[in-house]
Parts: sequence; structure tokens; C-alpha cells
Amino acid sequence: MDERKILLLIFDGLGDRPLKELGHKTPLESTPKPNLDWFAANGINGLLDPIGPGIVAGSDTSHLALFGYDPKEVYTGRGPFEAAGVGIDQKPGDVAFRGNFATVDEDMRITDRRAGRIRDGTEELAKALDGLRLGRIRATVRAGTEHRVAIVLRGRGLSHKVTDTDPHEGGAEVLDSEPLEPGAKTTAKAVNAFTKQAYRVLKAHPVNKARAAKEEPPANIIVLRGAGVYPDLTPFPERYKLSAAGIAGVALIRGMFRAVGIDSIDVPGATGGLDTDMIAKADAALKALETHDLVILHVKAPDLCGHDGKASEKIRVIERLDAMMGHLKSKLSSDLVLAITADHSTPVAIKEHSGDPVPLTIFGEGVRVDEVLNFDERSVARGDLGRLRGQDLMNLLLDVSNRATKYGA
Amino acid sequence: MDERKILLLIFDGLGDRPLKELGHKTPLESTPKPNLDWFAANGINGLLDPIGPGIVAGSDTSHLALFGYDPKEVYTGRGPFEAAGVGIDQKPGDVAFRGNFATVDEDMRITDRRAGRIRDGTEELAKALDGLRLGRIRATVRAGTEHRVAIVLRGRGLSHKVTDTDPHEGGAEVLDSEPLEPGAKTTAKAVNAFTKQAYRVLKAHPVNKARAAKEEPPANIIVLRGAGVYPDLTPFPERYKLSAAGIAGVALIRGMFRAVGIDSIDVPGATGGLDTDMIAKADAALKALETHDLVILHVKAPDLCGHDGKASEKIRVIERLDAMMGHLKSKLSSDLVLAITADHSTPVAIKEHSGDPVPLTIFGEGVRVDEVLNFDERSVARGDLGRLRGQDLMNLLLDVSNRATKYGA
Repeated sequence: MDERKILLLIFDGLGDRPLKELGHKTPLESTPKPNLDWFAANGINGLLDPIGPGIVAGSDTSHLALFGYDPKEVYTGRGPFEAAGVGIDQKPGDVAFRGNFATVDEDMRITDRRAGRIRDGTEELAKALDGLRLGRIRATVRAGTEHRVAIVLRGRGLSHKVTDTDPHEGGAEVLDSEPLEPGAKTTAKAVNAFTKQAYRVLKAHPVNKARAAKEEPPANIIVLRGAGVYPDLTPFPERYKLSAAGIAGVALIRGMFRAVGIDSIDVPGATGGLDTDMIAKADAALKALETHDLVILHVKAPDLCGHDGKASEKIRVIERLDAMMGHLKSKLSSDLVLAITADHSTPVAIKEHSGDPVPLTIFGEGVRVDEVLNFDERSVARGDLGRLRGQDLMNLLLDVSNRATKYGA
Repeated sequence: MDERKILLLIFDGLGDRPLKELGHKTPLESTPKPNLDWFAANGINGLLDPIGPGIVAGSDTSHLALFGYDPKEVYTGRGPFEAAGVGIDQKPGDVAFRGNFATVDEDMRITDRRAGRIRDGTEELAKALDGLRLGRIRATVRAGTEHRVAIVLRGRGLSHKVTDTDPHEGGAEVLDSEPLEPGAKTTAKAVNAFTKQAYRVLKAHPVNKARAAKEEPPANIIVLRGAGVYPDLTPFPERYKLSAAGIAGVALIRGMFRAVGIDSIDVPGATGGLDTDMIAKADAALKALETHDLVILHVKAPDLCGHDGKASEKIRVIERLDAMMGHLKSKLSSDLVLAITADHSTPVAIKEHSGDPVPLTIFGEGVRVDEVLNFDERSVARGDLGRLRGQDLMNLLLDVSNRATKYGA
């Protein structure tokens, strides 16, 4: 029984609902996509509920489930994955937040939630705060893309059960973090101390003095949200007895790779945006397959079009995904298992994630090829995989690649 | 993202099995029903296992599951829901029973399990027992329809783990309630004290003297069954962030509405019997949708025909349900999500509930309309919803109505 290599493609937010403007078809159903269809026609197909039927998944909970972990057991918040995504090393028990550099006036009222979408100088600003002591707690601070930043608190007795300091709207005051349980008082206190110290340090920082001189809004505060405890997840090599690599442009997914022991591979041109270089990512995936048993390739673009409510852009992204699949198809080795799915639906009509299930196609020698001919929401619903859950995916892939361990004897 | 209103139709016991006398079709498959079919043809369809594949659901456990609660966690017996259905306020920890007014001779042997299907005077009889003290325990007693009655015990250390006093057959003696676990001794003692005191009070009651004068069997005892603890269920408005109303003729379902924070609406003509006024119920549902986010309309009639083993009557009921759907169809607003399902199958051939799954159709803007054309057991089995569970239903409806909360970020 030869073990095969696995290439898993996750197209973020790909699933959709029928749209009036597309003649009651979904973007996938409206796009000519010969290569995606080729994999569906030569593979086995079905629908996947990332968490469960009707449940609206976040990108974080969904990827945990696709990776085989039970989010109900291990997920507390998005912070730890964002922090891992910008390269902060964490230990189980650390509490992490995602945050924004923002602009406040002297009354701590937010005048710009993204500090004028600041790009330059955030690394220096983060460095000025990195290592800050908040009583017995130490804060690690690292800048992400644009105004984004991640904070990790380390110390005894920390809890993620604290409220955000981000009021989630401009014009409002920065909030005090409140403990949501008695054991979270220390954490809330540390968070509020962080807010004050960050303000003091940031407002006097040369980067902000330079911004003021150019009449740009200063990045003089950090507002936090998404508190979570870094989970203790058995890493892929130990859990699945395979080496794994991941390619993603966005920090969250790179952080999720790191949290489960998947090597995150940097690809020049992989931006996590609509301008991402899909062919470069595909080539990097093929290269990574030379050294790894499983490679995961994540593309954020379809989700962005869903959130923007733009059907025509989603269609263009699907055309480009299809071109990438054509490129992959021409270079695949015959002993590969390839799977195509999404982490959730982001319907153009609602501009948000929805609980509608996503297509799943599995292609490779030995799969029970079904009669489905097209890779879209309704065609795959009639496929032989039926309706499955995100947490089933890794088991299916291990099985088809002849890597599964027998349960029982 | 516009939130939509939801109308959920639950047709009790609607599912069935193929019958020889119907040419190996089910009653649903044998009935012309253009309106039900219209919703199936313009919606997405599937099969629902109320609890799980092959599991024969009661009406109580099934409705708990359809409402999104796990019966394995919250269900102990039918009593609390029957008691809520006749309007008894309960607190978590109360133990409730459903019961019959019955007739016993001087040896406590039952000569009529329904006291001659007594109709008049049961309210006075219940009132004579209401508030009875049984040591430190207090009994609330309220009459239901005909010979039916509900009893709630309140006090410290009560348990539902006691046996029935109802021997479930005429000619047998009223049973002593026995504790099924050591902690249930107090409860069993209270139940047995209730039996004795009820007999003493009832046999001397003017209602029974008058019945004796007319040579009608006296309602001189109450026999109990279905002990259960009133569960502590998070009510709908808190659990699902919506206001909900329910319309049902039968006490059990009205009680289940009350137990989960669904406003139970009285509709003149809604009897819970074959004579129920379905059009009046449909109009009441449309009216309730003006003030509530979710309205549940329950019709008992198909279940009654199943229990009676009468295919022709079940077909007539389905024709009337279809007329009701036609009435609803002509008055629906375009922003509504409508779902049609059943709580379980009650096949005519077996005159009891069965574990066969029931049809589910979901209709509304944005659903992935499938190729199913008919609302019946075998047609919907090929629908794109696939095979789901009762506990998935609320999540599906919240998703389609754009009311779901994201799990994760």
C-alpha cells in the first residue's frame, strides 16, 4: 500500500448563494471553469459543513475543523492565531489579542480606527512597546500589515475572558477591558495598563511626530479584540504522522499553520489580496510537495469579493483559480491526492460568512469517481461523498492517500 | 444583511411507509398536493431524522430536538410539558406527571381508565385537589381535556426516578409508586400520599355524587405517569436572539412552546383534532408574523390518522394541509423563510411512531433551490439538503434568514 502525497486547496469564502443578477445561479455556477470541472468530473464530490449544518463559521474555527481539531474544545479567540501569524512564539496559557493602531484625541475618543491606514513606521512603533512590563505580566507586541498589530501577554493566571478595548466604531472612547469571570481580573487590569502605557509611549514617538508634521493622523493608541488562549494542539507530524507545509498570504492562516505544526512557506507575490500571484503559489506548492507529505494552499481572494458584495469580481477570481488549477493539472504527478474545498461560504448577497455548505472534490488514484461533472454548490450536492463535516476532511485525505491508521484490529 | 422572518410548519406524524393498499406508495406520495409540491419545487429539500437515523422519537423529544435542544441532556419525561400545556407555572427542579381521572372500586381496582371519558366537572375536581400538602411537598393539580390532568410537585429533593401509579390497563389495581434510585424515596412517598388523599377527596365530591346519580362512573382516582423534572432551557429570545410565537391545538406542544419561551397563541377552532380549523391557524400564523420573528404552526391531525391506521383519512388530512399551504402561499411576503417538516413518522401500517426520517423543505430568497419537484418522503431524499438531524433545523433556519451568529471570527 503506497502512501501518497496530498495537495489540499482551500479557497476562502468560495461558497455562495444563487443571485438574481446571475439568473439565480451562484458565482461558481456562472463561471466557465474547465479545470475545476475536470477535477470534479474525475474525482468524488460532496458538500462540507465546516462546523455543522447551518452554523456560520469564522475563518479561524473553520480552519481548525478542516485541520481535524474540534473548535469547541480548543478555540477561545482569534488573537493567538493572528499573533502566531506575525511570528510571535507562544506557549499554552499565553493570552493573545489582535489589535489596530488607531488615533485618539485627548479625551481618548477614537478619531480614526486605523490611524489613516498607516503603513510605514508600525514596526518601530511596535518595537517601542515590545517587552513592556505590566506588573508581573510581560507583553510582546508585533506589527502586522498596515494598521494591524498583535499582542501576547505572558504571566501567571491569565484568562481570555476579558472584554475588548476596541469599541468597534469610530467616534467612541477606547474601552476599559472588563473581566467576564472573577479569575480574569488580573488580565483585564494588565490590558488596561497596556492601553495607558501604549498611549504614553506612542504619542511621544518620533514616527508620530513625523506623521503630525505631515498632518497625518498619529498612531497613538492600540485597541484590542479577539482575546484567546494559545491552545495546546498536537502538531500535524505527531497527530497524522506526516510532514506538512502551508502557503497563505494572510497572517491569520499562517498563524494557524504554525499553531498546528505546518511549515509556513513564504511566497513572493502571495499577498492575501486580490493581487496575489496564484501561479507563484501553485509552483511553490508543487515545490513543497518534494519535501513534504501534505501541502495546503490557501487563497483568500474569493472571500474578499464576497465581503465586498461583488459578483463580477468573484467570477474573475474563480477564473483565475481555474487557471491556477490548469497550471497544477499540467504538472501533477500521478501518485498525488488532490482536494479542493473552502473554509466557508461568503455569499455576495449578504457580504458576510454564511452557514451554507461548501463544495468538496477529492481527486486521486482509487477514489470512487462519481457522476458529478461540475465543481459548484449544487452539482457536488449530488456527489457520492454526500454531506460531510469539516472535521471529517483530514480522515478522508489520510484514507485516500493510504496514510490512515487502523482504528481497532 | 437583511434579517428575515421565519414560518416553520410542523405536521405531526406526517411521514409514512409505502402501503400495499396504496400501490406501494406512502400517503404523501398518493395525494395530489400542488401547493406542498410548489414549495418543494421552489425550495431546497432533504430528509430529517428528528433524533437520529432509525431512532423512534416521541412528540416531546422530537420537538425538543427541532427546537435545537439535545433531548439526551434535557429530557426526563413528558409530565412537565403536559403540565406547562395546561398552564401550570413550573420552576427547574419541580417534578411533574401527566395523569388520568379514572374510576376505581373499593379494592382500588380500576374499572374505567378514563372515568367514562368524563368531560364536565374535571375543573372542579382538580380545584378540590390543587394546593394539596404532602408533608413538605405541595401539589399543583390542573385539568386538561376530557379525562386528562397534570400534577406538579414542588419541594426539596424531588426526583423523577419513580414508577407510575397508572397500571396502563383496566382491571388492574392502582400501583404504588416505587423509587428507582435511593434519592427518589421522598418523591415516591409523596406520590403515594397523593393517590390516597385524592381518592378520599374525589369520592366525596359533589361532581362524583351527581355522576353516581346518573349512573356514570365516578372520577374517584387520579393515576399518574410520565414523571419528569422541569428542565432549565435557555428560552428562544435569549438563545436565538429572536421573538417566537407558536400555534398548536394540543396541550403537549403548547407546553413545549412555554418551556422554551415561545409565546403560545390561542386560535379559536384549533382543536388538536381532525376537526381543527387549519385556515384559521394559518391566518393566525400570518398575523403572529407581524409581531414575531419566528412563528411555528403545529398540526396534530396527520399523526392521529397514523395512530388510527387509516390511510384514507391521512390522505384527506394531507389534502387539507395542502389547501392551507395554498392559502399561505397567496399571502406570503417575499422576505419570509418558510420551512415544512414533521416531528416524526407515524406509519398507518404500524399505528405508532417509527424511526423513518421525515421530509424537510426550506423555501426563501437565496436558498440553493434543488431539482426536487414533490414534497414526499422519496422525492425529498434526492434533494440538496441531504440527510440532516432535528437539532440542525434551527441552525439552518437562522442561516437562511440571515440571523445566525458567527462562531469564531
